Amino acid sequence: MDSSVDVVVVGAGIAGLVAARELTRTGHEVQVFEARDRVGGRLLNATLPGGAPIEVGGQWVGPTQHRILALIGELGLQTFPTHVAGRHIAEVGGARSDYSGRIPRLDPVTLADIAQTQWRLDRMAARVPLADPWRAPGAERLDSQTFDTWLRRTARTPRGRAFFRLLTEAVFSTGPEDLSALWAGFYIGAAGGLDALIDTEGGAQQDRVVGGAQTIAIEMARELGDRVMLDSPVTAVDWDAAGARVRTGDHVVSARHVVIAVPPPLASRIRYSPGLPGDRDQLIQRMPMGRVIKINVVYPEPFWRADGWSGQANSDTRPLGTVFDNTPHASTSDGAVPGVLVGFLEGRHADRASRMTAADRRAQVLEDLAGYFGPRDLGPVDYIERDWAEEEYSRGCYGAFAAPGTLTRFGPHLRRPVGPIHWAGTETATRWAGYMDGAVESGRRVAGEIVCSR
Amino acid sequence: MDSSVDVVVVGAGIAGLVAARELTRTGHEVQVFEARDRVGGRLLNATLPGGAPIEVGGQWVGPTQHRILALIGELGLQTFPTHVAGRHIAEVGGARSDYSGRIPRLDPVTLADIAQTQWRLDRMAARVPLADPWRAPGAERLDSQTFDTWLRRTARTPRGRAFFRLLTEAVFSTGPEDLSALWAGFYIGAAGGLDALIDTEGGAQQDRVVGGAQTIAIEMARELGDRVMLDSPVTAVDWDAAGARVRTGDHVVSARHVVIAVPPPLASRIRYSPGLPGDRDQLIQRMPMGRVIKINVVYPEPFWRADGWSGQANSDTRPLGTVFDNTPHASTSDGAVPGVLVGFLEGRHADRASRMTAADRRAQVLEDLAGYFGPRDLGPVDYIERDWAEEEYSRGCYGAFAAPGTLTRFGPHLRRPVGPIHWAGTETATRWAGYMDGAVESGRRVAGEIVCSR
Repeated sequence: MDSSVDVVVVGAGIAGLVAARELTRTGHEVQVFEARDRVGGRLLNATLPGGAPIEVGGQWVGPTQHRILALIGELGLQTFPTHVAGRHIAEVGGARSDYSGRIPRLDPVTLADIAQTQWRLDRMAARVPLADPWRAPGAERLDSQTFDTWLRRTARTPRGRAFFRLLTEAVFSTGPEDLSALWAGFYIGAAGGLDALIDTEGGAQQDRVVGGAQTIAIEMARELGDRVMLDSPVTAVDWDAAGARVRTGDHVVSARHVVIAVPPPLASRIRYSPGLPGDRDQLIQRMPMGRVIKINVVYPEPFWRADGWSGQANSDTRPLGTVFDNTPHASTSDGAVPGVLVGFLEGRHADRASRMTAADRRAQVLEDLAGYFGPRDLGPVDYIERDWAEEEYSRGCYGAFAAPGTLTRFGPHLRRPVGPIHWAGTETATRWAGYMDGAVESGRRVAGEIVCSR
Repeated sequence: MDSSVDVVVVGAGIAGLVAARELTRTGHEVQVFEARDRVGGRLLNATLPGGAPIEVGGQWVGPTQHRILALIGELGLQTFPTHVAGRHIAEVGGARSDYSGRIPRLDPVTLADIAQTQWRLDRMAARVPLADPWRAPGAERLDSQTFDTWLRRTARTPRGRAFFRLLTEAVFSTGPEDLSALWAGFYIGAAGGLDALIDTEGGAQQDRVVGGAQTIAIEMARELGDRVMLDSPVTAVDWDAAGARVRTGDHVVSARHVVIAVPPPLASRIRYSPGLPGDRDQLIQRMPMGRVIKINVVYPEPFWRADGWSGQANSDTRPLGTVFDNTPHASTSDGAVPGVLVGFLEGRHADRASRMTAADRRAQVLEDLAGYFGPRDLGPVDYIERDWAEEEYSRGCYGAFAAPGTLTRFGPHLRRPVGPIHWAGTETATRWAGYMDGAVESGRRVAGEIVCSR
């Protein structure tokens, strides 16, 4: 079962599919191997009672994510705004605030502390050169400490610190103690600042994709047709200067170039012969995935709206630290549109929740929702959860992050090809790393590398 | 090519071979699969001109390493003392000291700073419970910061900090910014204190194995005979409560238990079906290997001894930060015993050196040796280097370490079996983790787990 193409792409997430699409357009013969029985990687639709799609993986897009927005348009897909009308809830350091707009109503000392910390964080992030963060001013110093250490030095009040811990978990799906401060700065810089990351209106959670975000991948895969082969985990890449032989099952395909379009901990699983250079191999040992359990809780209707709530809630004490209204677009439902709340168990909360029984975890989630929005006689009609750390072909979510000491030592090897092997995936992006937009950037970049290498 | 045994062991380093030996003795049928064409893992002998063996991998044993010392005795092997007579050299923060005994002669302020930092470090390490370091007093706090952050807060003088950076590189083969402070405390505690780790006489570098340390593995493998199969990388483990099917090449062996006796980043490479539980999988994403290039430089005779030097030298500025006299035991040579200096390029020094040409790297090493011991007309007669980060089946050396946030979140999963899968390797030890002694402990522990599970 041997064959030959110009380029083999490993992974049919957005990065791999964009690369395959660009390369096909420029006349390359491309073969995409996807380990799973579906495309989309960390994007995955499920179906609600009534037929509407709901995302159990990545879902939001925002206004400065030009690449993914252009792709969505190009594929003939539509976006619609995340529901935001109503008052939000924030529980920070034991204080509960109902608020509208962007800023929780907390005591003035805490608010001042949050403001000065955000100002310093945005300033630090703005100084990180996005193509080479290891050249940031004070890069060595920032990379020698955890983001937790940085935050403890910067935020002065207990509630201010609690706020930034919550924010870190929501953005990185891991605690600030796990991240390099330099990685945090890079990531925030790559999004254009903290507000862009955390905001709904005007930020990364502003819009949703009609039909569900996985549709982006499904549409690209449809275009690519039988160039995409499912159920084909790549186990080995034998390479030399002239090209590579890529193995999946009993199938070996020769190619002049290989695009590895999976996150670092999955790239790490493939056997390369010869083995990867030490720099590259050390890098991918030091970029673990975050951890999140995503839960959609489905009600007959969005009852919280009638009570004046937006559905958006955050807490630094409840395991379900981040909640949004995730009611699907009316056009996608067969009948009445159900009301959906989506919540996230992130980082250490995911650790603890994953050790519970499914029934206990569900009870905990419903208790947290009742804590935010009040007890409700009508129980949910559906409960859809996905623990991404249990997914063999994701190993976690939302994305990989760099542990301290990683970027300054091995950062330049994030995108540097190894012979005929090119590295894609949102973690390699310079804008919106960790987001769908970054995945598009990375797919385009590797396609460019290959086109230019002719 | 299917067969069935009681236990499959993956990896023929000390941990795997000890487990196989213990299990064979207790009546189990055992099959050991080793990816390489040799046994020993991170232990590897080479041969000097004249026939004497020299280690390009792990080599030293010390007085409180009772398990490895007992094993060495049991196998009929001998140890001999590392050469220490003469003055040592320490270059710290721009000051050079020639000294004998244990303490470099530095200025009194630096010495006081080093003494107080070591006292605090030993106190912190002594409080870490070795079987469950995540229960140490202040474990969350220690695990939320890098060891660099801890050292910067504790050591007050530039030279004191330089000393502990050098020491960290020598012990962990990575910088203090890469490690969790809790892992550093655990590791030091597991050795019984800092002196035990860094000392030659009375410490972990006190003795050497006649014939070279790999002989320990070779002798065990000889006993095990055809139970050890070389050139057999294990690629997949299919498991359920009753047992497992282990695949290497076209060969599948069924067993009631599997012992994975390789470091975490290699355990991470195997495909498990069903996939590993999230906790275990997240853990092994967060324990990368250190990085070291080990170099033996061979001279016609140990000329430095005649000049009054012990051959032991350290520097926080020279890339070759750690040097010892590594002259082989007289009994192992065909003719005149050559003089050998062994040097280590560790952590970031290894990064830089690995990017040089072989010729430039050699010139750098020889320049550093000349800087320590003075220029010498007689050039080396041999130069033997090994970059362990380039080894596909090690992915680095000396051992794996835990990034911040790892032990407190996932530590309990370091040794917890997953169904029929048991985890060995020196990184799982509670005494002398990272050393041969820890590997023996881990092999015995998994054998005990399996024997008791009957």
